Amino acid sequence: MDIKAYVESLASRARQVAVVGSQASSQQKNEALHAIAALISKSTDLILEANALDCARAVERGLESPLIERMTLNVDRVQSMCEGLVQVAELSDPVGQMVDQNQRPNGLLISRMRTPIGVIGMIYESRPNVTVDAAALCMKAGNAAILRGGSECIETNQALATQIARGLEAAALPIQLVQLIETTDRAAVGQLLQQTAYVDLIIPRGGKSLIERIAAESRIPVLKHLDGNCHAFIDASADLSMASAIVMNGKTQRNSVCNALESLLVHKEVAPRFLPNIVRDLAAEGVEIRGCEVTRKIVGSETLIVPATEEDWRTEYLGPIISVCVVDDLGAAIQHINRFGSHHTETIVTEDSMHADRFVREIDSSSVMVNASTRFADGFEYGLGAEIGISTDRLHARGPVGLEGLTTLKWVVRGAGQIRQ
Amino acid sequence: MDIKAYVESLASRARQVAVVGSQASSQQKNEALHAIAALISKSTDLILEANALDCARAVERGLESPLIERMTLNVDRVQSMCEGLVQVAELSDPVGQMVDQNQRPNGLLISRMRTPIGVIGMIYESRPNVTVDAAALCMKAGNAAILRGGSECIETNQALATQIARGLEAAALPIQLVQLIETTDRAAVGQLLQQTAYVDLIIPRGGKSLIERIAAESRIPVLKHLDGNCHAFIDASADLSMASAIVMNGKTQRNSVCNALESLLVHKEVAPRFLPNIVRDLAAEGVEIRGCEVTRKIVGSETLIVPATEEDWRTEYLGPIISVCVVDDLGAAIQHINRFGSHHTETIVTEDSMHADRFVREIDSSSVMVNASTRFADGFEYGLGAEIGISTDRLHARGPVGLEGLTTLKWVVRGAGQIRQ
Repeated sequence: MDIKAYVESLASRARQVAVVGSQASSQQKNEALHAIAALISKSTDLILEANALDCARAVERGLESPLIERMTLNVDRVQSMCEGLVQVAELSDPVGQMVDQNQRPNGLLISRMRTPIGVIGMIYESRPNVTVDAAALCMKAGNAAILRGGSECIETNQALATQIARGLEAAALPIQLVQLIETTDRAAVGQLLQQTAYVDLIIPRGGKSLIERIAAESRIPVLKHLDGNCHAFIDASADLSMASAIVMNGKTQRNSVCNALESLLVHKEVAPRFLPNIVRDLAAEGVEIRGCEVTRKIVGSETLIVPATEEDWRTEYLGPIISVCVVDDLGAAIQHINRFGSHHTETIVTEDSMHADRFVREIDSSSVMVNASTRFADGFEYGLGAEIGISTDRLHARGPVGLEGLTTLKWVVRGAGQIRQ
Repeated sequence: MDIKAYVESLASRARQVAVVGSQASSQQKNEALHAIAALISKSTDLILEANALDCARAVERGLESPLIERMTLNVDRVQSMCEGLVQVAELSDPVGQMVDQNQRPNGLLISRMRTPIGVIGMIYESRPNVTVDAAALCMKAGNAAILRGGSECIETNQALATQIARGLEAAALPIQLVQLIETTDRAAVGQLLQQTAYVDLIIPRGGKSLIERIAAESRIPVLKHLDGNCHAFIDASADLSMASAIVMNGKTQRNSVCNALESLLVHKEVAPRFLPNIVRDLAAEGVEIRGCEVTRKIVGSETLIVPATEEDWRTEYLGPIISVCVVDDLGAAIQHINRFGSHHTETIVTEDSMHADRFVREIDSSSVMVNASTRFADGFEYGLGAEIGISTDRLHARGPVGLEGLTTLKWVVRGAGQIRQ
């Protein structure tokens, strides 16, 4: 198989049909989404069979069990894919929405209209629901999508892509609006990243090393989701029971996700009152604590605290570990976070509104929170309806990316014959 | 000189001071802009001396006269730089502005705050006013700027940069907020494009080949301004005297700019009435006409019309040439433009509001106009106050880019102790 020619033909077909997708009515797009949901639901058995094949191969190849857990489908998981499709159908269509408007002294009306980006390439690992989510979001935002899932899920993804194509057809949309790269050859990714003439944006989802590799190699703009080294700062004026709830929720509600809490900063004035309790509670939940010297002194030998190194301040553990540091004041907390953090999500617990405002203004992260758990950094929780990922980039879209992040704006100028002097 | 170490040290200093720029008050930034304006005005003689040196060298090196014209300063041009600085000071500060807000069922208040991008690298040619404009816009939007002007203007740019630094100092801002690359060694550009750890965005301004080279080489996101192959479509219902004014203005008011008209499409129903007159008027202004077969038949031998080739449909002439094509209907015009255009700026002249709406919806360009001259595609004309360029990219910022395009958004979440279930 000539991988270069194959990927190029997929990409050029995507570009050709993108104009049809960009002009499809909301009704037609929603019809397709409902049709896909119904078709996937009806072919649950087929999809589970394909998935069983993938999982059996994965076991044979000795893949790690968390990965196999992530890729395994069951009736509930298939059902929730279908629910996701219906939810996207219910979101309002961003395409054609008008954004701000002003009239110039010469009478020209200047406004902006939301339009699709064009062709979007998604590169992702394991979870097969990304195939469905990405297809739905890209298509609803009027884009054409090229999907490249993990090779371990190729059978499942193909089974899903078949139903997606049938659903597009049922709504009289070109099936090439969503194309799956049907080879597991790794060279296909490299080829996709070179299609500057046909592909407008690459969205990778997966581990940090995958994303870094793609960003380094891509000739096409990439919307990156790198690490979430998220912080909570407990201010001197904090309500300590609120602080405790927010820290426990951030670290223990689910610790393998990007918006989980990784580092706890405590104002020195409340450290003696706050630290012994929170350390005990975290330890009781099986969380390993890596603390600064002051933390260790305050807590004493009550609970084992591993000495934290600078490396800890920089680390996204993605597991049951937390770093703890006592800081002199709000300024020191902000400096620590901007220096060692990954600019993903941080929260302050405080009753001082001036401190809250300063934290919000000066923290350079995609989400900055006051008196809330970092676990809320999520497209659903923000009311976007769904998310295609969380961007840690600064350009185009930052933080949770929903339909709006999959669109762009064009200027619309309406006149009555004006010419420039 | 170790170019790599030099550029890296500029970039790392820019990153260090960017946080100060991002937190500077509007008052402080405006103070700096006014101080720079006053200092440049006061040192007009010094700046003109430096410029005379650059121009003399350019003549010696045999540079083309339009380039020398563009780089030559005089008292008026220096004065208008100063006025530009004062104008930027008068623009409202985008940093800290809040964008949309919604309250979630759980009580969380979700909004977004406008923030600086960080460190911006500008790479440009000839016109020394870009040094001042870029410094002003980047700084007002809270960013640190690294400027790399054309080697032909090095003396002028250094003279300007000296005053910029003094103005920053006068407002107690770090002078490294605006740094000029003070070597003319071309390797410096290559080095700048590799500073992914320190530079967030590259904005090139100049010829298409420069921009394409930078985009191909850069490891940092690039905001590109490629060509403007702008179209006017004269619909069947057009007011023909309005159409004539818009075409003449688009092509002849200034033809070397990106928003000048390059291609005229005429509905077949009005072609016999419209074409002979407009062709005569254009020819009278010294414009060369390259027409399709139908155009040539309609106009006959009255005026010389060169047969247009497909290459003409794709060409941005940037000079006194226009391509003319008769089309069957609105749909054919839209197809022609989306296929051959450069997605910069297009206008329709029509009295039919349904046609206007369809043109606006279906034309895939950064500016789409109704009954107005393409020459209005410009940040000043759109009310942005100033522009750092016109983006032909689809991501982040599209069309004229002002202060807003030099910022990004972060999510702000305010709660009362909410945790995720």
